[in-house]
Amino acid sequence: MSLKTLSAKNASELDKDLMSSGAFSIDQLMELAGLSVSQVVYHLQPLSKGNRILVACGPGNNGGDGLVAARHLWHYGYKPTIYYPKQSKNELYQRLCTQLKTLDIPFTEDFQSALKETDHIVDAIFGFSFSGEVREPFPAVIEALRDTKLPVTSVDAPSSWDIEDGPPSSGPGKGFQPDALISLTAPKPLAKWFKGRHFLGGRFVSPQIAQKYDLEIPKYEGLSQIVELPSGEGKL
Amino acid sequence: MSLKTLSAKNASELDKDLMSSGAFSIDQLMELAGLSVSQVVYHLQPLSKGNRILVACGPGNNGGDGLVAARHLWHYGYKPTIYYPKQSKNELYQRLCTQLKTLDIPFTEDFQSALKETDHIVDAIFGFSFSGEVREPFPAVIEALRDTKLPVTSVDAPSSWDIEDGPPSSGPGKGFQPDALISLTAPKPLAKWFKGRHFLGGRFVSPQIAQKYDLEIPKYEGLSQIVELPSGEGKL
Repeated sequence: MSLKTLSAKNASELDKDLMSSGAFSIDQLMELAGLSVSQVVYHLQPLSKGNRILVACGPGNNGGDGLVAARHLWHYGYKPTIYYPKQSKNELYQRLCTQLKTLDIPFTEDFQSALKETDHIVDAIFGFSFSGEVREPFPAVIEALRDTKLPVTSVDAPSSWDIEDGPPSSGPGKGFQPDALISLTAPKPLAKWFKGRHFLGGRFVSPQIAQKYDLEIPKYEGLSQIVELPSGEGKL
Repeated sequence: MSLKTLSAKNASELDKDLMSSGAFSIDQLMELAGLSVSQVVYHLQPLSKGNRILVACGPGNNGGDGLVAARHLWHYGYKPTIYYPKQSKNELYQRLCTQLKTLDIPFTEDFQSALKETDHIVDAIFGFSFSGEVREPFPAVIEALRDTKLPVTSVDAPSSWDIEDGPPSSGPGKGFQPDALISLTAPKPLAKWFKGRHFLGGRFVSPQIAQKYDLEIPKYEGLSQIVELPSGEGKL
């Protein structure tokens, strides 16, 4: 079985199409992306098995998806904590933070301590626009994600993985294999190396866009904003 | 049993709070409101019982909620048709329309003909900011909603009802009693006169806002963006 994937370049182009010809705002897309992330966590981490969720957010859109997910998780009954050390000055991200603060969701600057008091971690650090080196303060965070026994759900990419070439052969992400991955809009090529449970989110792609980027959109069930990709798919 | 309601004035103030201190954008709020409307339709109108949904949209925010709901319904597998005779020039509404057009969702100018080819109607004509007279071309539409045997789901208010005083004693809406109502954020006083199935949507209200406006937020289950209010509630 093979699942078609979307290169980093095409993922960026697709996002631009969604916002130009598709007429979506980034607010809408991020809301729906974050909602789908929250649904994956809900499925993998039932409230009864521990409701503390540590959401590690990077400086870009991937981090924004994490911020939205955290808000929805709070409304489901979880207790999210946010680690967001490189906060964007962008107005949207600042609003997403305010939305969390009005719910009294705590922000921490100490990832290692927060890790000791959580049940599940959302890795929303780097997404499809990541390339190159992992910059401070994230190397130690990615090492901790690699070494923890707690379940980790990565958003769009296991952070530090190369979007095209997958797991790095050196550096903090060497050997990092999260438990779950939610690919947004379409799996990226790195999915070939991913061994955990794989979900797809982003139930807003039009047939035209799917055709243009040669995507296969699997069947979402009912009202779900996510669909699990069968084991063996996601491999090239 | 009584359920606390929100006056038209307070509903307007609450929306302003959500967008000022709450830091939500209208894009986000409308996305979540429309999503909750789509979930009500999904529950009341299973795909197997007829998938054609006529969404009647008014010129304001209520219409915008309908436009968003239609998009989600399409993704669930429904065939929405949009009646939107007084289209706002506001950029957000234009974008919501474009999002529908990229899915090839048809727009009709002939409500009466469309009514003959649908299974369920969403009344997203007027919301909590409605007062006074029903203007053209909506009187005949509201008469049709009153007289149809098809199920009608109203968004926030049965259109033409007075937000505080409920069903009008004259005019096209006299005797209009939709099958279902989804109140957004909180029921409005008109809910006292509503006899059908009553849902609440808007799973984004913070405890502070609930306290400020003296709202009782019922318990949403699981991932649902809606909660049905028990029979007898919604009555003052």
